[in-house]
Amino acid sequence: MEKKAVLLLHCADRKGLVAMIADFLLLHGGSILDADQHRDAALERFFMRIEWSLADFDLENEEQFRQTFAPLAEQAGFSWEVTYGRRKVPVALMVSRYQHCLVDLLYRHQIGELNCEIALIVSNHQDARPFAEFYHIPFHYLPMTPATKAAVERQQIELMESNHIELVVLARYMQVLSPEFVARYRGKIINVHHSFLPAFVGAKPYHAAFRRGVKLIGATSHYVTETLDEGPIIEQDVARVSHRDELETLIDKGRDLERIVLSHAVRWHLEHRISCFGNKTVVFD
Amino acid sequence: MEKKAVLLLHCADRKGLVAMIADFLLLHGGSILDADQHRDAALERFFMRIEWSLADFDLENEEQFRQTFAPLAEQAGFSWEVTYGRRKVPVALMVSRYQHCLVDLLYRHQIGELNCEIALIVSNHQDARPFAEFYHIPFHYLPMTPATKAAVERQQIELMESNHIELVVLARYMQVLSPEFVARYRGKIINVHHSFLPAFVGAKPYHAAFRRGVKLIGATSHYVTETLDEGPIIEQDVARVSHRDELETLIDKGRDLERIVLSHAVRWHLEHRISCFGNKTVVFD
Amino acid sequence: MEKKAVLLLHCADRKGLVAMIADFLLLHGGSILDADQHRDAALERFFMRIEWSLADFDLENEEQFRQTFAPLAEQAGFSWEVTYGRRKVPVALMVSRYQHCLVDLLYRHQIGELNCEIALIVSNHQDARPFAEFYHIPFHYLPMTPATKAAVERQQIELMESNHIELVVLARYMQVLSPEFVARYRGKIINVHHSFLPAFVGAKPYHAAFRRGVKLIGATSHYVTETLDEGPIIEQDVARVSHRDELETLIDKGRDLERIVLSHAVRWHLEHRISCFGNKTVVFD
Amino acid sequence: MEKKAVLLLHCADRKGLVAMIADFLLLHGGSILDADQHRDAALERFFMRIEWSLADFDLENEEQFRQTFAPLAEQAGFSWEVTYGRRKVPVALMVSRYQHCLVDLLYRHQIGELNCEIALIVSNHQDARPFAEFYHIPFHYLPMTPATKAAVERQQIELMESNHIELVVLARYMQVLSPEFVARYRGKIINVHHSFLPAFVGAKPYHAAFRRGVKLIGATSHYVTETLDEGPIIEQDVARVSHRDELETLIDKGRDLERIVLSHAVRWHLEHRISCFGNKTVVFD
Repeated sequence: MEKKAVLLLHCADRKGLVAMIADFLLLHGGSILDADQHRDAALERFFMRIEWSLADFDLENEEQFRQTFAPLAEQAGFSWEVTYGRRKVPVALMVSRYQHCLVDLLYRHQIGELNCEIALIVSNHQDARPFAEFYHIPFHYLPMTPATKAAVERQQIELMESNHIELVVLARYMQVLSPEFVARYRGKIINVHHSFLPAFVGAKPYHAAFRRGVKLIGATSHYVTETLDEGPIIEQDVARVSHRDELETLIDKGRDLERIVLSHAVRWHLEHRISCFGNKTVVFD
Repeated sequence: MEKKAVLLLHCADRKGLVAMIADFLLLHGGSILDADQHRDAALERFFMRIEWSLADFDLENEEQFRQTFAPLAEQAGFSWEVTYGRRKVPVALMVSRYQHCLVDLLYRHQIGELNCEIALIVSNHQDARPFAEFYHIPFHYLPMTPATKAAVERQQIELMESNHIELVVLARYMQVLSPEFVARYRGKIINVHHSFLPAFVGAKPYHAAFRRGVKLIGATSHYVTETLDEGPIIEQDVARVSHRDELETLIDKGRDLERIVLSHAVRWHLEHRISCFGNKTVVFD
Repeated sequence: MEKKAVLLLHCADRKGLVAMIADFLLLHGGSILDADQHRDAALERFFMRIEWSLADFDLENEEQFRQTFAPLAEQAGFSWEVTYGRRKVPVALMVSRYQHCLVDLLYRHQIGELNCEIALIVSNHQDARPFAEFYHIPFHYLPMTPATKAAVERQQIELMESNHIELVVLARYMQVLSPEFVARYRGKIINVHHSFLPAFVGAKPYHAAFRRGVKLIGATSHYVTETLDEGPIIEQDVARVSHRDELETLIDKGRDLERIVLSHAVRWHLEHRISCFGNKTVVFD
Repeated sequence: MEKKAVLLLHCADRKGLVAMIADFLLLHGGSILDADQHRDAALERFFMRIEWSLADFDLENEEQFRQTFAPLAEQAGFSWEVTYGRRKVPVALMVSRYQHCLVDLLYRHQIGELNCEIALIVSNHQDARPFAEFYHIPFHYLPMTPATKAAVERQQIELMESNHIELVVLARYMQVLSPEFVARYRGKIINVHHSFLPAFVGAKPYHAAFRRGVKLIGATSHYVTETLDEGPIIEQDVARVSHRDELETLIDKGRDLERIVLSHAVRWHLEHRISCFGNKTVVFD
């Protein structure tokens, strides 16, 4: 498989941006494999994802690219990130008692769907331990009470830091993260909300949906921000339900939705397909 | 096509209900064509829809059925309705400026999808007139201002009454009905909400969805109750959207959803497939 | 949870069938929890699924029910089966190299979605062994060559028989079963076809779909009959694809579909929701 | 609304293509509004759709663009087309007895969803005449028998030519076009097939789907080629069906699918979003 690099950037929109980037890559011998642009008219903002072959590219590593591209980028006001090859980003999974998302992610990782290293699993319960051991992932059991919450979160952050974590996936982790945690990993925490946001915000959305007699239930994956359940939406999906569904089968159907929308979000993040600006995402699919 | 009757009923759940109804029909020579039951465990309520052939049935019309069945039903505490043959129920369509749902319903009616007589179209604008004339439906233009609203609504109700209307369809009618109107046609007014309820309640849901960056938009059809946008949901559907959608294409996609969910709701109502209890529907599909 | 029984039956359609069954259950003190009928007009056949509470039912076990119901059933020409309580049916899983369906079924079983006992896993490869061991399911590695195929299949059948297997699930098992095997477990073998049947019958449907430039891919679960890929369809689902999908991502999306349609089929079978007649299924959902 | 142009092109893939086009536009003062590229790895072919503002663009009309761009394009081996502004392309609709797609397209056109001029409606039946008259579209009734088919088709082609038709939409037109007709309008005839191709090719797909007991039905829009039902697929969609559906309701559901997939295909074609190469489409959505 040929070696590739990906550049993801956004900036205030203006004339000549595509030419500028394309010329830069061409100058250094890059052959574009895939390019996608988006211009948000309301925000007057330009988003781009560009993937090119490293075969004849003369900037030999990310560091060299950064040094060469930075002056241009600074002048042009780009927010940008570049990734060479298929570097396996270290990822942390956080989970509480429901394991379906965790089990799903671990298997997807094993068969190569997720380009990352799952560096650790953190949980406030023991339920995930057997799965962690089966897949040989370090497991950290950090139980939590209101009294210990702050201290435990410091431990969690130390774990993230010492493992150089670049993405935190909340795979049905039922504790609210503190603003400090969120700020430290801004744009790097993905959560799944077991609901079609913003329909049923809050703790027991399936119960609310059941009482309301809805005909569709949904799930949403999103980046975590300081405002609970209101971060930028990455993916949503729904399933049809009817009066025949009891609360229990609603929850069963919800599990399948949660697995799908969370795994999509994680995969797209790892493939550098998501740009985030303000409270919206651009997903280059 | 064989002549059929439909009985729709619900009551407090208890033993022997299916046998009671099935025996009653058999006693009078009815051959069951289709039967569906539902027991809502939370509400402890039994719902049934039963369709039978009138070929050898000895209760020769709805009136005779009613007289014979009423004592049994009263004793058993049934809420029920019966319909013989394919009687064409008189329906009123109310519409404002957006005609897509109206045009859709008129064509579906013409090709026989909707078993009813469209007795009249009422609008506070002139836009629908050409369509009404094309399909030879009486058109009533009743413009409305805050000052005239109460008087105009009395005119509307007189029209409904003089036409013996049994179902009022709000095909993107943008005026809020008064509690009196709603009370008079309880369970007989169907509305389409251009949103996936309860996500974006209110006046401009597509704008709200666009700002929130959702990845799915939806539409909902429901019975109208005194509480705006909170009546029992009949049908919902969604369409996938992305960052590439502008507000305009969101609205375009929404129109297709609105047509589908409203036409389903109207069709199912006319086929006596919907039981309503509390704030939930049972749709026997 | 209250104890329940389920009766699933079909027969030539005629008058009085619902009354007959409902009266029988009432006579013995059964309170109907859920009942669904279907009359196939083309086949002139009646299908019924009825679920009732065993709380006051005077036929105390399946054996007693069978003795009491059999004369009635024989006279009426019913094809029928009854199940008391939530008896855990012994199930065999057969798998080759792709484990995604197997892993999915094992986890669903663990969390209680599938009411059965997974008695054994049979494979012509070793890949599934770690999963079998993790979930403590006996694993039988039976490699197969064209020369040994007949002998190995006899071993497989012996395993099925000695474990009293009532359902065989082909979770991406890539060997064709012999007509003898199929005949012995008629209506008791569920397969998943990695395609939207009958679109792309055969061995490499994703390759065929890719070449044809389709905009949706699908998967199908069905009962296995002597005619390859033509058994009664239980469930189908699709996912949207585009020119951006390469063969590899088509296959990735296909895996998610396969897991969903196979797990639905297995669940519905175990809940006695599927009646099969001729080459069609009635799924009482 | 700002004036825009669209360039759609494809060519053998090689280095520098994005830069070449972007530089060309920049040189002439074009500000890119939207750009999308695709590289088909299997075909080694590059596809691009690029939309730019004409505000400061110095090539003042399509003719001038063509003269300036042609030498570059020829040297580079581009297949390409350019469109300035929102020129209303003349479109012909052909229809037989089923009017649902026609009615749908006419209303969508009226409310501005389809950027074209519907120049004429051609039919071998009279059913469409009232709709044509309502929307003030010239209607040509050209009945057809096997004996007159060749002569009638010549008349049809004359109509197309004298009206400078650039797109022919077969809105449930039930006659097979001759190879001559197809050759003359290659890549400019869109058909809707009332099936999920390639599942049920041929004349009565709903009957075939019903007999096979499928759980989903579909519809497909595609470009017409000499090989019946095998042209490049543009759009597909499905709806869920069950044993409760009779042939008639299958056909009802099919109509909704046909309207959606055909209207999408027409819209995308008119927005220059579809590139066609070999037997596959690239739809820049």
